Amino acid sequence: MAEPIPIIGGTGALGWALAMRWARVGQAVVIGSRDPGRAEEAAGRVREVAPEAQVEGLVNAEAARRGPVVFLTVPFRNQSENLTNLREVLEPGQLLVDCTVPLAAAVSGRATRSLGVWQGSAAQQAQEMAPEGVPVVSALHTVSAPVLGDPEAELAEDVLVCGDRRADKARAARLIEAIPGLRAVNAGPLEMSRIVEQLTPLLISVNIRYKTHAGVRLTGIGEADHWA
Amino acid sequence: MAEPIPIIGGTGALGWALAMRWARVGQAVVIGSRDPGRAEEAAGRVREVAPEAQVEGLVNAEAARRGPVVFLTVPFRNQSENLTNLREVLEPGQLLVDCTVPLAAAVSGRATRSLGVWQGSAAQQAQEMAPEGVPVVSALHTVSAPVLGDPEAELAEDVLVCGDRRADKARAARLIEAIPGLRAVNAGPLEMSRIVEQLTPLLISVNIRYKTHAGVRLTGIGEADHWA
Repeated sequence: MAEPIPIIGGTGALGWALAMRWARVGQAVVIGSRDPGRAEEAAGRVREVAPEAQVEGLVNAEAARRGPVVFLTVPFRNQSENLTNLREVLEPGQLLVDCTVPLAAAVSGRATRSLGVWQGSAAQQAQEMAPEGVPVVSALHTVSAPVLGDPEAELAEDVLVCGDRRADKARAARLIEAIPGLRAVNAGPLEMSRIVEQLTPLLISVNIRYKTHAGVRLTGIGEADHWA
Repeated sequence: MAEPIPIIGGTGALGWALAMRWARVGQAVVIGSRDPGRAEEAAGRVREVAPEAQVEGLVNAEAARRGPVVFLTVPFRNQSENLTNLREVLEPGQLLVDCTVPLAAAVSGRATRSLGVWQGSAAQQAQEMAPEGVPVVSALHTVSAPVLGDPEAELAEDVLVCGDRRADKARAARLIEAIPGLRAVNAGPLEMSRIVEQLTPLLISVNIRYKTHAGVRLTGIGEADHWA
């Protein structure tokens, strides 16, 4: 866990929450934003909650160079633009963890509905746009940003991870499981992200009805460390 | 729970498992099949596990007349044919609970992939084909038939229920929750079945990797009886 984790779009609710959670367990993070001032402001908010935090705020392109596993936590509306920018920056050997969900809210539709993505899923779009040698896995679609972003909230839920190579998924899983209460579950190849990305609008539908922030836990999976 | 529950396609793995579970808690069931002999044979297998069972096996059309809430548990390949047959039989005031999942396996594809259904989901196809006055809800997509069908297996999982009227969902939920260990969660309108039906191929993908029979449990939902 020595190398920092760059979070592209780290000033958003999910990205900031991840940064804060990692900072609290001693993991270095770099918050990326289009605006370096906003990135530094978000880093400051992490330091308020985690005074020992190793966190800095940088413009996205610089942030993305700071660590081997790069998390992309931007709204679907901005995913393509961010991927275009990252194309110039990411290098072979880096891993991109895409957290994008194609909610219909991106085009003023409902957050309980999703858009069709030509490649099949936002993650597959990311894979198509990522530079040669940079694999993509997808994860963290079902973790509620408000819950993750509340330092007092205890987590006890699963993160479904999709990707074409187990080793890539394991690399992302290690970082995800560094956050207490999150278990990373291997959901299959990247194409399964077509389904996993749909869990967000489903949970939003449940949240509306139960006035809650629901998450997912799969039953029937043992507690052994299956990424070992 | 006085009136029997007709299960169309009740000789299949999911339908039989439901029949067996309900029979064990004293709920009367009627197993429907195209072949009355196979229906009676399946009813006999329920009696072996639940000697006090109130269970009979009938041809589908007769079974469907025996109770107000009819469960449809057939493979996607046969859903349309069954709905055509049920059109002549179901009467206004009955409720149809559709459990169909459009797995690509229906057309010799993979069980980790799904087919696009013109209406958006198998449940919406069912609603289009159901007679006037017979609402459709969908449920039970994520419950593993082998686990449900093992009388010794303890359940502790959720069933996501989709439907356009809360009262219809509550009616189905009451029956589902009569099975110990199943909690029915309101997942929203019937169109959300587009997502919920996709959970089956997702779980199959997980099952392959973990050699298990996974189920779903949502976090963040209190234990209060929310159907009351």
